[in-house]
Amino acid sequence: MSELSGTERTRHRRLREQGRREREALFEVLRAGFVCHLGVVVDGAPMVVPTVYGFDQDHMYVHGSVASRSMTQDSVVCVTVTHIDGLVLARSVFEHGVNYRSAMVYGVPRRLEGEEKLAALRCLTEHVTPGQWEYARRPNRKELAATTILAISLEEASVKVRQGPPGDDDDPHDVWAGVLPLAQVWRAPVTAPAVAHPAPAHVRERAVEPS
Amino acid sequence: MSELSGTERTRHRRLREQGRREREALFEVLRAGFVCHLGVVVDGAPMVVPTVYGFDQDHMYVHGSVASRSMTQDSVVCVTVTHIDGLVLARSVFEHGVNYRSAMVYGVPRRLEGEEKLAALRCLTEHVTPGQWEYARRPNRKELAATTILAISLEEASVKVRQGPPGDDDDPHDVWAGVLPLAQVWRAPVTAPAVAHPAPAHVRERAVEPS
Repeated sequence: MSELSGTERTRHRRLREQGRREREALFEVLRAGFVCHLGVVVDGAPMVVPTVYGFDQDHMYVHGSVASRSMTQDSVVCVTVTHIDGLVLARSVFEHGVNYRSAMVYGVPRRLEGEEKLAALRCLTEHVTPGQWEYARRPNRKELAATTILAISLEEASVKVRQGPPGDDDDPHDVWAGVLPLAQVWRAPVTAPAVAHPAPAHVRERAVEPS
Repeated sequence: MSELSGTERTRHRRLREQGRREREALFEVLRAGFVCHLGVVVDGAPMVVPTVYGFDQDHMYVHGSVASRSMTQDSVVCVTVTHIDGLVLARSVFEHGVNYRSAMVYGVPRRLEGEEKLAALRCLTEHVTPGQWEYARRPNRKELAATTILAISLEEASVKVRQGPPGDDDDPHDVWAGVLPLAQVWRAPVTAPAVAHPAPAHVRERAVEPS
């Protein structure tokens, strides 16, 4: 199985048993969510902005207003995607933690134009809500011009996963220990005012899917 | 009601109608979660790391290994907390978005020691799992020494909230539009192997609470 890069930034320093080196682990994390935290440096200070993403085999795509400070980067950015699966409640406070799956991707973003931009917007839209690109009205020339789409290579990436019970079985403090799982669930769609149509199948069916 | 600061970094530039200026809005966002994304600058590049947090009236607290690169900052960091409440499925792809509540806090972290460090660790533990500080074994001297706790002032903060239906009622594309809500739910606690005790009330009761 193909392996993730091991650059100075992405090699696992701490908690190495939580590090994953397979490329497929990266795709699993990316598939499981649609919001990332995009980190950029503005005037020497970090700025962390939540935003939606899409991805294909080689790139992540994020979008935003052409006016946004997080969209005008020509130096490296860090994109982090995190899923929280539960609280790890150990015998000792020290061993408390979180069950999670997380990916960090580093890259210099490339601003897309023309056909490439439209394809990336489609990829992003379809990742967030499959079926919606065909259903909703596609962007016109003016709307496309107001949107920035950045592509970030998946080449330099790091994945960490922690699952399972707390690890302090040998702690003498004799109390309950375990995991309190946390899940994300879709609820039934809420129709906007003055809409005469029923929710389409691709939206209704998502609401009943486990996620 | 007391207002949040309006520094160059935290004034709302875009989507100003989503900006909130009240301090209470910040606390609402902080209360609703327990994982933040901590953004730091390492060798000129941004690094965004998910980590748990606690807070009081004046500070956020984050913790990590003393060896962690995200814990050795003496310049400004950015802490972002984001809750995703649903997908906003508009008539046009351009108006698609996310219902969310998000806070960004900027500050130069201060590394806590002694009594202050213990109090912050208690605050953090109790925020993540109320009742657990009294129940679990408290950190001993060695464990405390292996943990870094950073305090970040809540003075420079920005809050954005977007809720409600899509805004493109006037779009001629006549299809269903609305919101697909997303919720986080606690599941029943999973007891670790070889634990003879039942889950305590403060853990059991959390699992049935709506969150």
